Amino acid sequence: MIQFRLCNPTEIVFGAGQISTLSQLVSPGTRVLLLYGGGSIKRNGIYDKAMAALRDCEVTEFAGIEVNPVYETIMEAAAVVRMKGIELILGVVGGSVVDAAKFLATVAPLNVGDAWDYILARGEVSTVLPVGAVLTLPATGSESNPVSVISHRGRRLKLPFAEQRARPRFAILDPDTMTSLDIRQLQNGVVDAFTHVVEQYLTLPVNAPVQYGFSDVLMRTLIEWGPRLVDRNDAEARETVMWAANQALNGLIGAGVPQDWSTHMIGHAITAIYDIDHARTLSMVMP
Amino acid sequence: MIQFRLCNPTEIVFGAGQISTLSQLVSPGTRVLLLYGGGSIKRNGIYDKAMAALRDCEVTEFAGIEVNPVYETIMEAAAVVRMKGIELILGVVGGSVVDAAKFLATVAPLNVGDAWDYILARGEVSTVLPVGAVLTLPATGSESNPVSVISHRGRRLKLPFAEQRARPRFAILDPDTMTSLDIRQLQNGVVDAFTHVVEQYLTLPVNAPVQYGFSDVLMRTLIEWGPRLVDRNDAEARETVMWAANQALNGLIGAGVPQDWSTHMIGHAITAIYDIDHARTLSMVMP
Repeated sequence: MIQFRLCNPTEIVFGAGQISTLSQLVSPGTRVLLLYGGGSIKRNGIYDKAMAALRDCEVTEFAGIEVNPVYETIMEAAAVVRMKGIELILGVVGGSVVDAAKFLATVAPLNVGDAWDYILARGEVSTVLPVGAVLTLPATGSESNPVSVISHRGRRLKLPFAEQRARPRFAILDPDTMTSLDIRQLQNGVVDAFTHVVEQYLTLPVNAPVQYGFSDVLMRTLIEWGPRLVDRNDAEARETVMWAANQALNGLIGAGVPQDWSTHMIGHAITAIYDIDHARTLSMVMP
Repeated sequence: MIQFRLCNPTEIVFGAGQISTLSQLVSPGTRVLLLYGGGSIKRNGIYDKAMAALRDCEVTEFAGIEVNPVYETIMEAAAVVRMKGIELILGVVGGSVVDAAKFLATVAPLNVGDAWDYILARGEVSTVLPVGAVLTLPATGSESNPVSVISHRGRRLKLPFAEQRARPRFAILDPDTMTSLDIRQLQNGVVDAFTHVVEQYLTLPVNAPVQYGFSDVLMRTLIEWGPRLVDRNDAEARETVMWAANQALNGLIGAGVPQDWSTHMIGHAITAIYDIDHARTLSMVMP
């Protein structure tokens, strides 16, 4: 085993109906930025549930985060964060929005000309805003890890950024919310999670029976239960895949073992140039 | 799956030689209580390594924590903590000492007549001191969970106490330190860890393929690798068992599934009355 440090302070709140716990997780009066994507949360009821739970907070909304979150959009959100004095960024549903929330939490407090270049050059980041996550799509593990993958439209780049302090304080994983997803999103999620395991598993061998054993369990679970998501009434499949996807990329199975991630790096470049779904690029590239 | 919350903020620092990272984990000038047991750490070199890493801190020592940590001893330590204005309690080596450190961190700031009765009656605990752990014996998982099992000599009781805020801030797991343990301690550790898995596994079935799969991995690992600890030169066995024992009781495999713990409760009572090693009571009681 390789020496490692492992710490995962994100509070996972798991189970059907848990979205209502937002009212306990966020203190009354907090200035919250509700960050979301194309507005599907207004059709599937998640928006209404979140707003009900946050009724004692000052909520500002920012919609329009892309499926592959775009730097230029996040910088617009950063202006809103600064103007409104936002205290908590709540990314609602999907790894893309959570990625955007974490990057936003890192760049919004910065007072620099070009945040992209500044972060890439490892400029000092003294303050990171707290992030919370509400998840529908089990895939990226973004809800309890420090990584954001962000696309720069102007430069046609898609790069990963890691900031430990941006790891969500809490992540609500409510499997019932997965009923709002279409089949393609579910397929993509399962493939993405499976690839995360492979990136930490099919590498140079070391002595790590626990980590490899856990990886075996996650791959077997995704293979067996992933296809069952097609049955939209299978609540057991939803909770099983959601938990497996979280465990696939929260640091646990990668602790103490060599990791690869070349499939992801190639996939990110393909998405940046051809705008193909992330998971589909992975399934093309993965050996 | 049952609804659950899971949060494990302990920073695990794993690997041979990691004890030297104490100097990074504890700020210079911190008033540290070094809590330990019968003094084996002075013979095996761990004391010297810890003191070297803490040379810029104000270290107070408290020795004599029992194998089954005793309430009356911990209350003596609490007086030292208050007198010296201790800021961090560092439990050095073994789940017993870490249990004592967590309980001490909870009771030392209390200003009540009988802390045992006060805690059992769920009296308010406003302050808990930070705890750190250096581990040699992989067994209890105490290094990254909130539970302390404490014996009251006067009342012949042995009871578990849980305090989330007492969970160690960091835990150094250095498999090389296991070379200081005798065969009986190693045997006990493997049996204890195995029983922890069983207490979270042989219960009422729910839909939890990931948790049950992880439990399978841990039991198989302990069965295969535990006996190899008899070969004192098997570094791979040490790191494998140490990591498996940690994972067996850090909240992960018990998240979302029913738990039992009746074997432990009966075992604790046997130890309280007959002073038999904890793990040996478990192996007698476990179905």
